[in-house]
Amino acid sequence: MPYYIGDVITDYKKLVIRTPEDFQKNGINVRIKTRVEDIDSQKGLVRLSDNSSLPFDILVMATGADAARLDIPGADLDGVFVLRNLTDALRLKAYLNEKECRKAVIIGGGYIGMEMCEAMKNLGIQTTVLDVLPRPVIRWDAEFAKMIVDELGKNKVPFLPETRPLAIEKGIESRLVLKTDKGALDADVILMGVGTRRNAALAKAAGVEMGESGAIKVDFRQQTSREGIYAVGDCCEVFHRVAQRWVYFPLGDIANKQGRVAGQNIGGRPTEFPGIVGAQSFKVFNLEVGATGLTEEEALAYGFQPVSAMIWGLPIGRPMAKGEKLGVKLVADKTTGKLLGGQCIGEKGAVQRIVGLSVALWSGLPIEEVGYLDLPYAPPFGGAWDAIHVAAQELMKRM
Amino acid sequence: MPYYIGDVITDYKKLVIRTPEDFQKNGINVRIKTRVEDIDSQKGLVRLSDNSSLPFDILVMATGADAARLDIPGADLDGVFVLRNLTDALRLKAYLNEKECRKAVIIGGGYIGMEMCEAMKNLGIQTTVLDVLPRPVIRWDAEFAKMIVDELGKNKVPFLPETRPLAIEKGIESRLVLKTDKGALDADVILMGVGTRRNAALAKAAGVEMGESGAIKVDFRQQTSREGIYAVGDCCEVFHRVAQRWVYFPLGDIANKQGRVAGQNIGGRPTEFPGIVGAQSFKVFNLEVGATGLTEEEALAYGFQPVSAMIWGLPIGRPMAKGEKLGVKLVADKTTGKLLGGQCIGEKGAVQRIVGLSVALWSGLPIEEVGYLDLPYAPPFGGAWDAIHVAAQELMKRM
Repeated sequence: MPYYIGDVITDYKKLVIRTPEDFQKNGINVRIKTRVEDIDSQKGLVRLSDNSSLPFDILVMATGADAARLDIPGADLDGVFVLRNLTDALRLKAYLNEKECRKAVIIGGGYIGMEMCEAMKNLGIQTTVLDVLPRPVIRWDAEFAKMIVDELGKNKVPFLPETRPLAIEKGIESRLVLKTDKGALDADVILMGVGTRRNAALAKAAGVEMGESGAIKVDFRQQTSREGIYAVGDCCEVFHRVAQRWVYFPLGDIANKQGRVAGQNIGGRPTEFPGIVGAQSFKVFNLEVGATGLTEEEALAYGFQPVSAMIWGLPIGRPMAKGEKLGVKLVADKTTGKLLGGQCIGEKGAVQRIVGLSVALWSGLPIEEVGYLDLPYAPPFGGAWDAIHVAAQELMKRM
Repeated sequence: MPYYIGDVITDYKKLVIRTPEDFQKNGINVRIKTRVEDIDSQKGLVRLSDNSSLPFDILVMATGADAARLDIPGADLDGVFVLRNLTDALRLKAYLNEKECRKAVIIGGGYIGMEMCEAMKNLGIQTTVLDVLPRPVIRWDAEFAKMIVDELGKNKVPFLPETRPLAIEKGIESRLVLKTDKGALDADVILMGVGTRRNAALAKAAGVEMGESGAIKVDFRQQTSREGIYAVGDCCEVFHRVAQRWVYFPLGDIANKQGRVAGQNIGGRPTEFPGIVGAQSFKVFNLEVGATGLTEEEALAYGFQPVSAMIWGLPIGRPMAKGEKLGVKLVADKTTGKLLGGQCIGEKGAVQRIVGLSVALWSGLPIEEVGYLDLPYAPPFGGAWDAIHVAAQELMKRM
């Protein structure tokens, strides 16, 4: 008899929080507002927060990760939020409405910062993004990050680089004041988007082996070191096909696929998760931004000999273009000639290229082949020489 | 000393026709309004239409293909056009302007028909498309073709299926009348988009070997059967990586790549053209349409055991969707489990998927891996399970 144990049940498709009864109709037992205190993997027992126990033959660890909260004074004041799950989102939305927020500060120029500054701005809230680092979304090339900062600027969202939050206090003009090493900022709402913390302690305590990254170690079938215990999602590692090693890569689509693979194996159909290549993307105002594979820094750290080329091309055919730009950066390995990674940015077509590059990385294609890939050319979608080809041909010259 | 011999020199990047002087500045000799009458491949001589001869060590055949013109009475009347090159386009444009055309009929529901009906409509010209076949762009699934016909209808462009043109005559109400087996149609301008005819006769006469398709046979370096004679573009064959055979596939991006490969080889840098997978796309009003690889019919003809699945998914994440549809059809080989082809259609994101599927075909990926490909997930660009994954998972069930 399958049990789901957790805090709440969220239905992302319908953007609602569900009751256990919704699931019991379908024969799934759900215990909400219940924690697993510990796991006895020898006896096959989980001890719950109400002191009862449940026996198991198969256990799936899907404990995910929590949004990190900066350890500064005032970090838990009313009006300071993190954003991790649907409950967080509904809570933030209610606050924005009820308190008629006019000013927001977002701490962190990562995905949460990029996606939420647009959402806040669309609600008419004056929004500022800051980061301790010199630029937002640090995994992207500095020239691409500049285009993002310009896009934020065009939309009246200031980005404050190298700014360290020190404390949050109650304000007078506004509900809150964020003190930083560069001065104070008024805010009615403060959102922290400063990364995640994997929830692997429960598994660790049960004697489940951790990987090098500190997340739960799994095999290609999502099995942990303990028979009968599986792990999926942001609490466990995943195999990176380009790096050829197990890494920690907490993204929602990977979690989904791992869940399916675990389910297939548990249900008796042996299935292996073929791994990832590090594909990712986001939208910020009118910019598409994507990346896949390894950056030069990562490639170096993993022992490759990275060579890179960056070009500014067009997302559509030249005769149709009206000033659009598409930046493409490619990284390849000098030793093997293989593509190692790519980044794209532009008003349109950036994600389209990252899709192609991701499949090229998946398949381990050499950069020479990337320069001649057969892509669905038509002027509304690219040139006869696509920006991918141009970047690859440029990179070939440097190999 | 390199010579270019041809009718005109077009510069597509700037959409102009160039003079020989533009090229002579850069040391390239150009003979326009000159035909090559025959080639003596033994002596290395081309005889020109002015009865002079030019010696060659290396000869590149880039004779392309001509737009076919229906062999019906009145096919060469003033106001009847084909569309192949920049000169054709400029001639048509001038006619539309000068004659103040109000009604257009396009014969042929292929790429030319789909792209030109939108262009005509945007000029305020009442436009009808007809075809002898039961639906437009016959290579796409009937259900997808229906979506295209609906899109034409929404834009007030009637599509007349199974309609055979019989004759063109001068009109009274309008400049021309197209007689068909289903009745007569008034038109001020008639455009024939009924396919191409490869120009391989000159090469054939010179003893250059033809491929099974009837186009010039080449190897991976674009060399023909005669040493020193290369062929590129719409006059020659190309290797299809999925079909694993040489085929005739006259598309502009392929021609471009073949030209580069021939140039590299001639210039002393041995380069092989890695072939194509059949990627193609077009836009018609608000629809993106793309295909890659083999259809079921082609797959059968080439000896595969095709199995297919079609799904209607979403081009973006479900919570952001506002009724958009994305159709994905995949074909795989039952024997090997490999992906053989794909088709997509939708208001957005169709080409993005065809890019991914094209690289998957390029790499010979099995359908199982297509179902787990790592794609750059973000809600503005797709679901955590992308439409590609959903279609592939559906197809897996049928294998």
